[in-house]
Formats: sequence, C-alpha cells, structure tokens
Amino acid sequence: MGIKVLRRVSVVYLVLLFVSFLVPVHGRLLSSPNKPDPNNAAATARWLVTQNSWGVLNTISIDLRGAPFGNVVSFSDGEPNYGRGIPYFYLTTLDPTARNALKDQRASFTVSEYPLGTCGKTDPENPTCAKITLTGNLKLVDEKSKEAEYARSALFSKHPEMKDWPKDHSFQVFKLEIENIFLVDWFGPAKPLSVAEYLKPRPSPSKPPTSFPPL
Amino acid sequence: MGIKVLRRVSVVYLVLLFVSFLVPVHGRLLSSPNKPDPNNAAATARWLVTQNSWGVLNTISIDLRGAPFGNVVSFSDGEPNYGRGIPYFYLTTLDPTARNALKDQRASFTVSEYPLGTCGKTDPENPTCAKITLTGNLKLVDEKSKEAEYARSALFSKHPEMKDWPKDHSFQVFKLEIENIFLVDWFGPAKPLSVAEYLKPRPSPSKPPTSFPPL
Repeated sequence: MGIKVLRRVSVVYLVLLFVSFLVPVHGRLLSSPNKPDPNNAAATARWLVTQNSWGVLNTISIDLRGAPFGNVVSFSDGEPNYGRGIPYFYLTTLDPTARNALKDQRASFTVSEYPLGTCGKTDPENPTCAKITLTGNLKLVDEKSKEAEYARSALFSKHPEMKDWPKDHSFQVFKLEIENIFLVDWFGPAKPLSVAEYLKPRPSPSKPPTSFPPL
Repeated sequence: MGIKVLRRVSVVYLVLLFVSFLVPVHGRLLSSPNKPDPNNAAATARWLVTQNSWGVLNTISIDLRGAPFGNVVSFSDGEPNYGRGIPYFYLTTLDPTARNALKDQRASFTVSEYPLGTCGKTDPENPTCAKITLTGNLKLVDEKSKEAEYARSALFSKHPEMKDWPKDHSFQVFKLEIENIFLVDWFGPAKPLSVAEYLKPRPSPSKPPTSFPPL
C-alpha cells in the first residue's frame, strides 16, 4: 500500500470519526437548559416535542383484533430549535404502523421528558416529569407537495441517516393532524391546552433557518 | 474502472467496515456489557423489558372516538435483574389509561432500547436499536392476591417514590396479559417470538432475591 493510499485512508478515517461524533448531537438532542415554566402549557408542550427526536406512535392494529399498537419511531417537527409543532414521520408499509394508518387514520403520538435528562432524579411517571400525547389523524403527505419538502428537511436535519435508508423500502412522509392534546407537566389534572394555542408560532430564538423551504 | 479507482473503492469500503464495527462496540461496551446477541430474540426481549423503568402504555380511548391513546407510565416486571417478563403498572382512574382499560382491556406496551444508552450513535429508529411492543389485555390485579403482593414489590423496588403516591388517588396494580410480541432488534422483519418463549424463566445471574414473595 503506497503512502498516498495510506494518507487517503487516514483522512477518510478521521472524517468518519469526526462525523460519528457529530451525529449524536442531532440524533439524541442534548438536554435543554431552557425548560419552560410548567404554568406555560403551550411553551412546555412545544419544548417537549421539539427537543425529542423519538416517541411512540400509536395506531389501531389491523392484525391484532383492533388493539392499540404503539411503535417506537423517530420524528421531527422542524430543524432543531425551529419546530413548528406538527410531528412528521418517515414510514414504510413494511412496518405495521403505516399499514394501520392507511386503513384507519386514528392515531396518537406520545413523548416523554424523561429521556431528555431534565427530570433529574424524579420518577418517569412523576407528574413534574412532563409527558404529552397528541391525538388525531395520521396522514400520508403528498410527496410532491411543499409540505413534504419541508417535512423531509425537518426529518433529515434531526435524523441524518434517514437519507440513506433503503430506497426499496419506499419510505414516505406521514404527519399527525392534531385534534387533542393531553399534557401533564405538574401535579394535578392534565393541563388544558387547545390545538390552536399549541400551534401558535413561537418567537424564534434567533434568526430563522435559511435552509428551510416555506410551507 | 481502472485499478487505482478499484483500489480506492476497496480501501474506502474496508475503512467503512472497520468503523462500522468500532462504533457500536464502543457504544455497547460503555453502557451495558450485558445486551444479548440479537439472534437470541427471547433474551433480547426480556433484557429490554427488565432494563427499562418506563414505556408507553396504549389503550382504546373512551373520550377520543376510540383513538389509540398512548400514555407514558412507569412499570416493573420484577426486582432489578430478576424480571419475570410480565409488566406491572400502578394506575389510578384519575388518569384516562386506567379508565380506558376498565372499559376495554385491549392494550399494548411499548419500550425502546434508546433511553438505555446502549444504541450508541445509531438513530432511535435504526433497527439495530431494539424496540418491543407487547400486545394483549390490561387487567386489574386483585389487590389481596399473592400476585399483587409480588407486583407491588416489583414496582416499589424500581420506583421507590410510588409508595408515597397520594393515598386518595387510589392507585391499583394492573398487569398486561401478553398475547403477541413485536420485536425489532436487527435489520430485516420483526423477530418471530412466541409468548411461551418470552415467558420461559431465565437463569438467574446469581442467587434469587429473598425479598420477593413467591407467586
């Protein structure tokens, strides 16, 4: 093996090593020091959704007597720190969740604060460790629409490896059209929070991302 | 394609192969030396359930047009490292999940390897990052039974604060009677795994716990 090849190997290796360190910053979002005040239900809900990179997507099972079927999925509601609140997914009908949704759109999506590392030593079910369930309809997004373009940017920015998922699996963009929000972020009953309050745009932390297509 | 290009392709391929072996080994060694071989579906499933302290419990919603409703809950299948595979929960009818189950027992319980930290740098939806969905019936356990006694020991050993949860919330022990198992722990389709294979007792890592009542 010549010097040139060796040098090329070292460079490739270093680049890969560097990239492997970069990736988790996107895949597993670092804990945010900016957890909103629990009295601000809308801000807390949006923070929970935008900080998480995965959750459990629940559909009505075709195969299992109509049972509620929860499935671990990656998702994104926008570029990191610029979420718009609507969760997008990249699903294949090789997996039961997409097949279920194409038959019956009723679905919910559940996310916990616990894996963010911001719950400290409290129990995952302690009400101060926030949790949210968005219920609504899980819909296929027209792949040629501007919304699908936005969703792909949102998904790929948080989950870089999605771009390389097997083409023959025919992954497609789905979104949850939210109809109801169940948020627990403190003692007492679930926080009242309307979909309109939840979807209201948040002030951007700094300048808006330039890489995103408009909706 | 010239010899030089071919050589370059081979070298890049070898480097990629090398790195792909390095990354998961690094992730796994750091976090848990005990993740079973993915070819051993039963051991992997039991490891996933016993190592996790929380998951998403899905029921058919009374309030939301029969939608599948996922809820973040704490659970236990036994004292740490001595799980028996059946997830027990401590639920109150102040929360929709218990109310739903008392009306319609169909349920599933979903757990991910991702929050354990053993997935290394892979995406939460990458199939090498294991996930499991147990589907069946969510049942109230008779509070005076030996099983409820066992379940409370199992729950309180993993979730000490449960003992102090408000008495007037009337928390009760529920269990998932498993009928179907959906396990993904590697590339390819979900692993075939019967409930009998899953529930078969595992060899204890050392002496059995003495604090546990027999079933």
